[in-house]
Amino acid sequence: MVKTSLNFDENAGAKLLEAAKAAMISALECSANASSVHSSGRRARGFIEAARDHVGRVVGVGKDHVIFTSGATEAAALALSPVILKGRESLPVGQLYVGATEHPCVLSGGRLADRLTIVPVDANGVVDLEALSVLLDGHDMSTGVPMLALMLANNETGVLHPVAEAARLVKDHGGFVFCDAVQAIGRLPVDINALGVDFLSISSHKIGGPQGAGALVLAREDIRPKPLLTGGGQERGYRAGTENVAAIAGFGVAAEQVMNHLEDVESVARMRDRLEAGIQRISPDVQFAGAQVARLPNTTMCVVPGIAAETAVIAFDLEGIAVSSGAACSSGKISPSHVLQAMGFPAELSSSGIRVSLPADVSDVEIEQFLTAWRSIEYRLRPNQAA
Amino acid sequence: MVKTSLNFDENAGAKLLEAAKAAMISALECSANASSVHSSGRRARGFIEAARDHVGRVVGVGKDHVIFTSGATEAAALALSPVILKGRESLPVGQLYVGATEHPCVLSGGRLADRLTIVPVDANGVVDLEALSVLLDGHDMSTGVPMLALMLANNETGVLHPVAEAARLVKDHGGFVFCDAVQAIGRLPVDINALGVDFLSISSHKIGGPQGAGALVLAREDIRPKPLLTGGGQERGYRAGTENVAAIAGFGVAAEQVMNHLEDVESVARMRDRLEAGIQRISPDVQFAGAQVARLPNTTMCVVPGIAAETAVIAFDLEGIAVSSGAACSSGKISPSHVLQAMGFPAELSSSGIRVSLPADVSDVEIEQFLTAWRSIEYRLRPNQAA
Repeated sequence: MVKTSLNFDENAGAKLLEAAKAAMISALECSANASSVHSSGRRARGFIEAARDHVGRVVGVGKDHVIFTSGATEAAALALSPVILKGRESLPVGQLYVGATEHPCVLSGGRLADRLTIVPVDANGVVDLEALSVLLDGHDMSTGVPMLALMLANNETGVLHPVAEAARLVKDHGGFVFCDAVQAIGRLPVDINALGVDFLSISSHKIGGPQGAGALVLAREDIRPKPLLTGGGQERGYRAGTENVAAIAGFGVAAEQVMNHLEDVESVARMRDRLEAGIQRISPDVQFAGAQVARLPNTTMCVVPGIAAETAVIAFDLEGIAVSSGAACSSGKISPSHVLQAMGFPAELSSSGIRVSLPADVSDVEIEQFLTAWRSIEYRLRPNQAA
Repeated sequence: MVKTSLNFDENAGAKLLEAAKAAMISALECSANASSVHSSGRRARGFIEAARDHVGRVVGVGKDHVIFTSGATEAAALALSPVILKGRESLPVGQLYVGATEHPCVLSGGRLADRLTIVPVDANGVVDLEALSVLLDGHDMSTGVPMLALMLANNETGVLHPVAEAARLVKDHGGFVFCDAVQAIGRLPVDINALGVDFLSISSHKIGGPQGAGALVLAREDIRPKPLLTGGGQERGYRAGTENVAAIAGFGVAAEQVMNHLEDVESVARMRDRLEAGIQRISPDVQFAGAQVARLPNTTMCVVPGIAAETAVIAFDLEGIAVSSGAACSSGKISPSHVLQAMGFPAELSSSGIRVSLPADVSDVEIEQFLTAWRSIEYRLRPNQAA
């Protein structure tokens, strides 16, 4: 087994921060049930409430707007609720409108899977606001209110969506908006109120915290989804189940530090551009999906004609470099990227996308190391193509 | 803040085993996405598959029967499915029959909350099999199949239910059975096939593993609930979401070691009996709920007339002793125990239950320390009652 020396698969999960790990270990020493009234329980509770404050600040709200979950998939399933609770009102959701390039956990529709309409994206991977507008105009309010699920930044291409504009359209139609901000946090400034969305999801392990924690953040405390996990009174009844104190403590530390990463944005974008220029020189026929529009600074989706993405991922792995084909969570199976398909790439190219996502501290030397590997793999896998 | 020196609140969560903590820290070093194809991902995957094997063995099945979740509340929510998938069949559940003393995460009914019937328990807290039989005879199969949720051991009283007999009744009526085995694991031998149930839930942090992991175990791979969290292909599509590798690794180690605890059962039961005898001498009017029937060896629910359980919990905490009022997950709010109420305790006594749950390695000295505290609290809180 080759040791992975270069992690260019940052979007699958950032490296756990040492400070987050230290916080987890402190919390594990305590290892009490945070709902217990006794002092061990209250100590555990303290870790959670400190973390709640840090997570809220990341998107511009107070701690009482944060619902901790086991991760962003659960946060999405919670958000995609058949009913929106607004104060004392209970508003059924008539139709869920979902961006075509959403993460599978959103695209699957959660509890709204039986009333789902896909909103197309353009060739750049950006949601089609006109199409959304037409769909909303045709929405039948007698079935309930409309709900939109639109991600801030795509996990495969890094392409940014005009979430604020889309949210305004939905609000004009009396609806609600869920925004998957998982990949955007720490790479863009994110403010839930500026976006104008109702619910926003964050994942701990994408920002340097541990796996096993995430959050659904509410723009307003009085607008919330129907709980998904019920039973105990944890998270003020919004999410039952004994809290994962250690993971939440680590998440809190990562959230506290994540704003610092925003300083790296320009340098990471420069590195990504250098990477793409280098790849283009070696492989002139490579396309970078979404490169014509605003993207996350660290992400590039390289579409390489004639290569099976899975084969390339394994070839890079043998060189000690971690990359992925589409999203990690579906990369176990060999299937075309639904993101590339939605952008209009033909079937054969949709299985040829190699996602390279850079860590914030990537160096020139690492970019060169990657390009050397790319050249060697290109010669092996496409002997007639390399320039 | 007094340091808790005596944890007699074992049912809220066992102390994290050193070996489980070490496994977690090893897994954190890796901190890769277990669904990634590259070598870091495969290393993370290795932790999960080893744990899966250990968890399956605890209840007598192979690893492919284990679905990891974020905890037992999520496992219950997954089990309480509107549809049971049996091979290629999809069987709607018409009615959920739930034991009256189930944990709140089961009693809330999950996805079956709109079709829920409570099955009463007797004065000892044992499910009433005759009542269950009458309910099943009256079940309307045109609405779908019946489903029973019955716990193996109650978390507040330790009272054991005749799950195998109840499961036979349900099977005679063409139904399915979910068993919450959270408190029984490590305190009783548990075999899913001997119980004859379809689904069984386990919690990591109740058996010496970390918080943030649990499992739903399937008796047969071809009988399963409809997934609750959808999206990525994790857990073979049964449970989407990036796996919490560290928590699962710790859970696996705890599962591997849990069978050893069964050797402590007799000595813990002796300690519990000594504790009850001591309490009875100090407070002759105390009742031990369910003491006439088979119980977990480590648990006693002490019903103390005239005492508010919350007050007692805080008084014990000031003495450095952790106990609880009912279940930890609802003990934040002051409310009567639904378990005592279901057993027929009057309203005022249902708020006077102090749950004492002993760790497996409890000593004579600790029992005496507890009794000394009990006497002192008794004198303070009920000056006219103490013997």
